[in-house]
Amino acid sequence: MREEFRSDLREVGHLLVSMAETSRSQMRQATYALLTADKESAEAVIANDEAINGLFKEVEERVHRLLAQQQPVARDLRAVITALHISTDIERMGDLAEHVAKTALRRHPASAVPAELATVFADMAEAADRIAGKITLVLAERDAKRAAELEHDDDAMDELERHLFEIILGPDWSYGVESAIDGALLGRFYERFADHAVNAGRHVIFLVTGEN
Amino acid sequence: MREEFRSDLREVGHLLVSMAETSRSQMRQATYALLTADKESAEAVIANDEAINGLFKEVEERVHRLLAQQQPVARDLRAVITALHISTDIERMGDLAEHVAKTALRRHPASAVPAELATVFADMAEAADRIAGKITLVLAERDAKRAAELEHDDDAMDELERHLFEIILGPDWSYGVESAIDGALLGRFYERFADHAVNAGRHVIFLVTGEN
Repeated sequence: MREEFRSDLREVGHLLVSMAETSRSQMRQATYALLTADKESAEAVIANDEAINGLFKEVEERVHRLLAQQQPVARDLRAVITALHISTDIERMGDLAEHVAKTALRRHPASAVPAELATVFADMAEAADRIAGKITLVLAERDAKRAAELEHDDDAMDELERHLFEIILGPDWSYGVESAIDGALLGRFYERFADHAVNAGRHVIFLVTGEN
Repeated sequence: MREEFRSDLREVGHLLVSMAETSRSQMRQATYALLTADKESAEAVIANDEAINGLFKEVEERVHRLLAQQQPVARDLRAVITALHISTDIERMGDLAEHVAKTALRRHPASAVPAELATVFADMAEAADRIAGKITLVLAERDAKRAAELEHDDDAMDELERHLFEIILGPDWSYGVESAIDGALLGRFYERFADHAVNAGRHVIFLVTGEN
């Protein structure tokens, strides 16, 4: 029974890693679509969101089965419930990548990102990619120390968002209201993507150390 | 044991209703702060978000205890896990009310909402209030039929958000980029608030009918 529990839980862990990897590659491709106004990439991201949702459902079903069949307690129970929380965060990261792709698609064949914002969005995308890469590792290795670094990485993302707003609200902004709103919402999508990774990291820290 | 399970689950249900009621009153007060540029109300909403977070933690702890001590299966297990999902959605509704309050506070003593947007935000707030009231009832009475109505209520919210964007992006917009961004983000907060209520409603439908 104990062995079976371990094995089932490991399987759930693998699913979470797959979800994190997929959300990372989705955000990468969404950024590519955004920065190059590439329609096919944007459509691919939107179509592929179902893959993350499918993994999410699989986590849920396995967790249900695991709870019902093995009735874990204490630390084991915490691990199972934590997996459920983490999957909710990563599913949402996938949604945010889809939002970026949808914004790119809505402006196609024009670019949703004026030249003046290309650098800051490339930087935000890089920060998002680093963060998504880290949460993938954290999940694969249950690495609480690395999970704690995510807070710092998220500070960098917040700093980039502030910089984005400085540009949009600065005296040289000449792209009008619609581009300003696109920019602000896009900034929020990247920033929320990072927040959810941090949140997932906090769950891992709680799981490993028992402390919030 | 069975009786104890029922009683514990009922207690969790009451907590969810309290959370929903609190998120509703939080959004009400946040809207008041927004439309009247009232600093004290905005600060009260921000301070009171801890109350929802506290209820959220209580739900989590009770669910853990319930799973560990009573080891429910099948339908009972589904009810417990569903409660956890619903609490996540409602906690987020509270965060969104807090975001509205923070926006109001950031612009104080000026208003974050120019006169031209006052009506559409009053309408969005009314829609949010109706939706929050409905999800409270749905949770109190496990009313899947009423939960299904939430999708329709949410359509009304989406329509209001479209109208908001029409105004902001229209030829008569004279309030500049910063107000446009505030307006767009505020619109998103109300719209997401409604989305989470719909999501919570879907969980209730699944719980009651066993169907997605």
